[in-house]
Amino acid sequence: MGKQQAIGIIDSGVGGLTVAREVIRQLPREQIVYFGDNARCPYGSRSVEEIRMFTNQMVQFVQCYPIKALVIACNTAAAVVLEEVREQTAVPVIGVIEPGARAAISASRMGRIGIIGTETTIRVGAYQRVLHRLKPDLYTVGMACPSFVPLVESGMYHAPEARRIVEETIAPLVHEELDTLILGCTHYPLLAPLIEQVIGGEVTLISSAEETARELSALLSLHDLHAEDTTEKPKHRFFTSGDEQIFRQIGEEWLGFAIDVEAKSLEEIVPAASSNW
Amino acid sequence: MGKQQAIGIIDSGVGGLTVAREVIRQLPREQIVYFGDNARCPYGSRSVEEIRMFTNQMVQFVQCYPIKALVIACNTAAAVVLEEVREQTAVPVIGVIEPGARAAISASRMGRIGIIGTETTIRVGAYQRVLHRLKPDLYTVGMACPSFVPLVESGMYHAPEARRIVEETIAPLVHEELDTLILGCTHYPLLAPLIEQVIGGEVTLISSAEETARELSALLSLHDLHAEDTTEKPKHRFFTSGDEQIFRQIGEEWLGFAIDVEAKSLEEIVPAASSNW
Repeated sequence: MGKQQAIGIIDSGVGGLTVAREVIRQLPREQIVYFGDNARCPYGSRSVEEIRMFTNQMVQFVQCYPIKALVIACNTAAAVVLEEVREQTAVPVIGVIEPGARAAISASRMGRIGIIGTETTIRVGAYQRVLHRLKPDLYTVGMACPSFVPLVESGMYHAPEARRIVEETIAPLVHEELDTLILGCTHYPLLAPLIEQVIGGEVTLISSAEETARELSALLSLHDLHAEDTTEKPKHRFFTSGDEQIFRQIGEEWLGFAIDVEAKSLEEIVPAASSNW
Repeated sequence: MGKQQAIGIIDSGVGGLTVAREVIRQLPREQIVYFGDNARCPYGSRSVEEIRMFTNQMVQFVQCYPIKALVIACNTAAAVVLEEVREQTAVPVIGVIEPGARAAISASRMGRIGIIGTETTIRVGAYQRVLHRLKPDLYTVGMACPSFVPLVESGMYHAPEARRIVEETIAPLVHEELDTLILGCTHYPLLAPLIEQVIGGEVTLISSAEETARELSALLSLHDLHAEDTTEKPKHRFFTSGDEQIFRQIGEEWLGFAIDVEAKSLEEIVPAASSNW
C-alpha cells in the first residue's frame, strides 16, 4: 500500500459525506474515493442478508481504485458486517461505531448515554455492545429513528416539518436525563441543530463522523500511511448509484466546495462485485 | 499477551496519574501498573541522553510485570524516545503527543493552536511536527512552562502563588487569538482551572490524558486486547522512585480513591534495567 493512495469511504447514500467532510478537515492531505449507494438507500430497515450483500458490493467497487484504508461510514453496514469485511480485506478497515462509542464514554460524566440510529443499528444493539464491553456500568438507551434518513436523503432537512418530525421522534428521550447522545447514523449530523433544540443544549451530541475521522488518523499513524505533503491538492472522487444531481447538490452544500460526481448504475457495480460474492 | 494483563503507564512523576485516571474512567475493567520516576523528576530540562536512559529504565521495570500495552505518559519522554521504545518493545506502545495533536485538530475550528509544555517538549517541536504533518496550514505557537511541573509535583498547585505563576508564564499567549490550547504535559491538567481563567473560556483546552486513554482504547480494540469482564475489581499497582507519602497524597486526591504505593529505590530500578541499557 502506498501512502499516496486514497481513503475509500462507503455509505448507503449521502450520510457518509459527514465522514468525508471530517476527513478532509482533519486530514487535508488525504484523497478520498467515495461511493454512496443512493439507489438502494436506506439500508436501515433492510434484512441483514441484503445489508451484507450490498456492503460487500460497495467494498469490491472502491477497491478497484487503489485505496490504502477503508471506512464503512454507514452505521447500519458497520453494525452488521464490519468484522467480516475486515477479515476479507487487505487494507485496514474501520467502522463508525467504535469511534462513536469511545467518544461518548470520554464525553459522558454521568454515564447516561442515548443512541439514536436506524432500526437495524438499534435492533442489533451495535453501540450498546461496544459501550458495555468497554464500561459495564453505563446506563444506555437506544431509539430507532427510521424517518430521519429519508429526510436527509431527500434534502428536506431544512423544511419546517423536519423540526416536527425530529421533535415527535426523540421526545421520549427528553426525560431520560441523558448527558450524552450518540448520533448513531452518519446522516444525522445534518439534523444536529434540530436535535439539539429538542434534546437540550446540556446534552453532548456525539457525531460518529468527527470521531471516525480521528480514529482513521490514528490508524494511518499506526500503519505509517499518512500521505506525504505534495504541492498538488488531493483530487477526491465521488460515485453514486443514484441521482448524481441530488448527490452533488447535497454534497456541495455539506462539503462547501464543488465536487465531481459520477453516477454508476447498479449493473456497473454488481457485475464487478458478483464474481466474488 | 493475555487480555487480563495490565496496562503499563510510565511517567517522570505524578503527572501520568492524569492518564491513569482517564484510563480508569474510560476503561474501568483494565488494570494498571504505574511507575513514576519522582526521584529524577522533572525530565523537562534534562538532556536527550538522560531522558532516553531514564525512560528505557522505566520501560524495563514495568515490563517485569506482565503488561499487554505500554503508555509513555510523559510528554517529554514521548517526544524524545517513543519511536525507539516502540521498536524495542514487544507490546503495543503509545505516547501522549499524537493523541493530543489529533484532538486539537478535531477541536480547532480556526486552526490556531497553542502548545504549552516542558522546555524539551517545546524545543524539539514534538507537537508542531505531528500537527503540521497531519494538517500543514495550521498556525501553531509553542511555549515552554518550566515552572509548572515543580508546582504540581510539590503539591503547591492550590496555593495562591500558583495563579500568579500561571498568569505570568502564559500571558504572551493571551493575544495570540488561539482557539485551542494543548496541555502538552500530563502534569498540566491539575492546573487546568487556573490556565482556563488566564487564557479565557473560549479557548478549548486539550488534555493529552483524556485523548491518550481514548487512543489506548482504540489500540486495544485493534489488537483485540480489551480485558474480559470478571467479578473482581482490577487491582492497580503504583510505584515511585521518590517519596511514597507525597505520591499517595497527590494520587488519592487526583484519583479519588485509596491507592497502594510502593517505593522503589533507583538501585532497585537501575540494576534490573542496566543489563540491557
